[in-house]
Amino acid sequence: MLKRDRLEPCQFIIFGGTGDLTHRKLIPAFYNLLDQGLLPEKFSIIATGRCVDNQEAYLESLYKSLQKFVEREIKENVWNTLQERIYYKCFDILDEDGYQSLRETLENLGDKCQSKSRRIFYLAVPPRFFGTIVGSLDKYKLLDFSEEFWPRVVIEKPFGYDLKSATELNEQITKVFPEENIYRIDHYLGKEMLQSMMMIRFANLVFEAVWNNKYIDNIQIISNEKVGVGERGGYYEKSGALRDMVQNHMLQILALTAMEAPADMSTESIRTEKIKVLKSLADLDVEKIDSYAIRGQYGVGKIDGEKVTAYQNENNVADDSSTETFVALKLFVDNLRWSGVPFYIKTGKRLHNKVTKVIIEFKSSFHPSYHKEFNGLSPNLLVIKIQPEEGINFEFNAKEPGSKAKIVPVKMDFCQNCQFGFNSPEAYERLIHSVMIGDQTLFTHWDEVEYSWRFVDQIAQAWSENKAELATYPAGSNGPQQAEQLLIDEQRKWWE
Amino acid sequence: MLKRDRLEPCQFIIFGGTGDLTHRKLIPAFYNLLDQGLLPEKFSIIATGRCVDNQEAYLESLYKSLQKFVEREIKENVWNTLQERIYYKCFDILDEDGYQSLRETLENLGDKCQSKSRRIFYLAVPPRFFGTIVGSLDKYKLLDFSEEFWPRVVIEKPFGYDLKSATELNEQITKVFPEENIYRIDHYLGKEMLQSMMMIRFANLVFEAVWNNKYIDNIQIISNEKVGVGERGGYYEKSGALRDMVQNHMLQILALTAMEAPADMSTESIRTEKIKVLKSLADLDVEKIDSYAIRGQYGVGKIDGEKVTAYQNENNVADDSSTETFVALKLFVDNLRWSGVPFYIKTGKRLHNKVTKVIIEFKSSFHPSYHKEFNGLSPNLLVIKIQPEEGINFEFNAKEPGSKAKIVPVKMDFCQNCQFGFNSPEAYERLIHSVMIGDQTLFTHWDEVEYSWRFVDQIAQAWSENKAELATYPAGSNGPQQAEQLLIDEQRKWWE
Repeated sequence: MLKRDRLEPCQFIIFGGTGDLTHRKLIPAFYNLLDQGLLPEKFSIIATGRCVDNQEAYLESLYKSLQKFVEREIKENVWNTLQERIYYKCFDILDEDGYQSLRETLENLGDKCQSKSRRIFYLAVPPRFFGTIVGSLDKYKLLDFSEEFWPRVVIEKPFGYDLKSATELNEQITKVFPEENIYRIDHYLGKEMLQSMMMIRFANLVFEAVWNNKYIDNIQIISNEKVGVGERGGYYEKSGALRDMVQNHMLQILALTAMEAPADMSTESIRTEKIKVLKSLADLDVEKIDSYAIRGQYGVGKIDGEKVTAYQNENNVADDSSTETFVALKLFVDNLRWSGVPFYIKTGKRLHNKVTKVIIEFKSSFHPSYHKEFNGLSPNLLVIKIQPEEGINFEFNAKEPGSKAKIVPVKMDFCQNCQFGFNSPEAYERLIHSVMIGDQTLFTHWDEVEYSWRFVDQIAQAWSENKAELATYPAGSNGPQQAEQLLIDEQRKWWE
Repeated sequence: MLKRDRLEPCQFIIFGGTGDLTHRKLIPAFYNLLDQGLLPEKFSIIATGRCVDNQEAYLESLYKSLQKFVEREIKENVWNTLQERIYYKCFDILDEDGYQSLRETLENLGDKCQSKSRRIFYLAVPPRFFGTIVGSLDKYKLLDFSEEFWPRVVIEKPFGYDLKSATELNEQITKVFPEENIYRIDHYLGKEMLQSMMMIRFANLVFEAVWNNKYIDNIQIISNEKVGVGERGGYYEKSGALRDMVQNHMLQILALTAMEAPADMSTESIRTEKIKVLKSLADLDVEKIDSYAIRGQYGVGKIDGEKVTAYQNENNVADDSSTETFVALKLFVDNLRWSGVPFYIKTGKRLHNKVTKVIIEFKSSFHPSYHKEFNGLSPNLLVIKIQPEEGINFEFNAKEPGSKAKIVPVKMDFCQNCQFGFNSPEAYERLIHSVMIGDQTLFTHWDEVEYSWRFVDQIAQAWSENKAELATYPAGSNGPQQAEQLLIDEQRKWWE
């Protein structure tokens, strides 16, 4: 269960209140948190957005979204409590007067809306507005940095387009907010099994004992999606899988998997270790980029038997787009623990299944007699399943029953979302809750962002110079053959 | 599946053919092996026994036993094939003329009964007859040691009563049979998971990596029975749990668990390693025997809700018997790998459940922050389940779902006798099959017997001098409190 500690009265101001994220994720998360008694008793949500609704119509649209995105029947009493706390504010980000008006609104909403309380600003808008909003919040004095009301700002991804733009953005934000007040969202960090990763590693002697290059052959981080870009073609054209998935989510998973034990479990100590990992990412040989990084783009194909369109035919996508919808990478964490252990990352849209998982492949070290007697014994595999299934399984070798001495791989399974008869909280519930109690552990520090971009820029740069092929793969397949070959060339394979 | 390799024609001569073991285990094993096509095409079973039956009545009694002990409907065609090969021979072990007569019988049974083939002698009789029989087999020339027909002798437990008597018995047998022809039965070695133990250890890097005193806190070998002594009171009074279970089964399990990797998977190499373990058992301080060995005897109590009698009231048991029906031991394997790691052994009759398993308890090594934050974190446990369930489970720590950072122990399970939709072969099937193909791996070498007795004698000696208490425990309980205390005193507990 979530904790109620340190839940203080607050105003939660959403920029992008009429947008998709608010409808799909934020309001359902608030609803669920409220239902579980995990919001402060005193809070209000000020949703700013395009001037298309009035308060009544806005609430109605939220209610419809709740019905769609909360997977249970909506409790009227919970909704009633929630909607009393939601205030819709028609707002234009670029209109400077709007901020004055917003300040006045916030100050004059009265006690019911916690006019005098901590303000949390949630930027659920396109990144080009981040700097403007933050600057205006300061300029128009919406921020009270007194000890009591220290404001927080929550920033959705993407945080920049490359190291340069991310640095510029960060400078804009840190002119106003200190790092401790900035909550950079990476919603993967809200996922149950990623939070569990540290406990798996540091509360289990057996795992920790073998968590290094002496025992591990390679680590695979896989995140497959079945969906295409859908209506996000405009955004995706500028991003691609590398920026949309690798720079943030995949490298964050890698950091949690590879980091040293932190001095303690404080946010600061954990971030220190994650930063060290990202700082240790070995530079790639960009002249040989094809042997480190594979990019692909989906063509036509079938998903679940239904014919789907090619990426280049999606809305708001150029007919000759060279944006990658698939990335496979080989990289190295150049430190004492991981020296020589390749980390393979693979992510893509329109693949044959939806799964995110980390696979620890141990070395193929068996008794020489078994090596001789049995061909192709399987290495031990520890699989940490992140979504949609959450859990762990361990694949090892055992004797096939019967007297013949035959070794077969078998599996032990721990299913996290089966075992407890419990729906793991949605990532956004946990993230919103963390912001409210002031816990930055699940958010990325600037240094993490910086080192991630520094690494990813090498690849983006090489690709932009067309130093690498863009492979096409049929929708519904397992990605381009080149990604398979990347591992085959090293006598390895993806454990799908 | 069992292998058909090296299955040669043979005569299988059972001493004790009218006894319990033949009815319950041997004939059902032959039936099952035949049903699976795992007997040589040419073989005969010569069952010698008390002169109470004729051939017809004997076969009828076997058929009834089959119906009782084979857990499926008896296939008439299999039974017909089998019974045609069974020859009942009325025989008195102590009557020297009988051996002459037996020889003539074997020689004159004709081709159908493989008169000219390898002879396998199975001694399913009380141990006091072992020497006599083996001596007489030689004296009356029933043994043909020509290369083609090298005979084998199978000896049921117990192999001696102590080191002295075992040595004497062994000398009697080895006067006639070389070690390579002697198959000393320990039917636990026929059990699936014990055979699997080596593969678990030596075909899995993750297990092998932590299989030593750096990572393991202690190892527990538990074999609980619900049954009492039943009709075996006469035998049991002279044996007790120490000789009946510990000297053989429990120490064999220990040897398999603790042994170093053998040079190869040959019988000789494996035995060499098992012998080394038994040779390394640390001497006990007999003056402080109570801190190493607990003995107990069951009193009245309830098993599955039914009232059962005390051991002293069982048939053929003395009213003031001090025979132990329960043993708990702490012992050490004094070598580089296991120095400092206690092995706890526990076995008893009339306990609350029936289970045989090995528990590897890893050290309670967690991140210091978790130690501080969470009381009593569970150590990692690897449990190898031998019977009745066969399989492995691994207990480790994971995050309790939900945002609160709470660590809970969870379990990954691999059930060997569930997974393959396969009934593991009964131990005796495997053992008879091994004798037929001449594989001694699942049988105990004299050196193993010798070192086991050498160790066990210390305890038996101390107990016979009444240096230790005999605790009574209620039938259906978990054994005497002293056994719990043995571990509690060391801040440990039995993982039941």
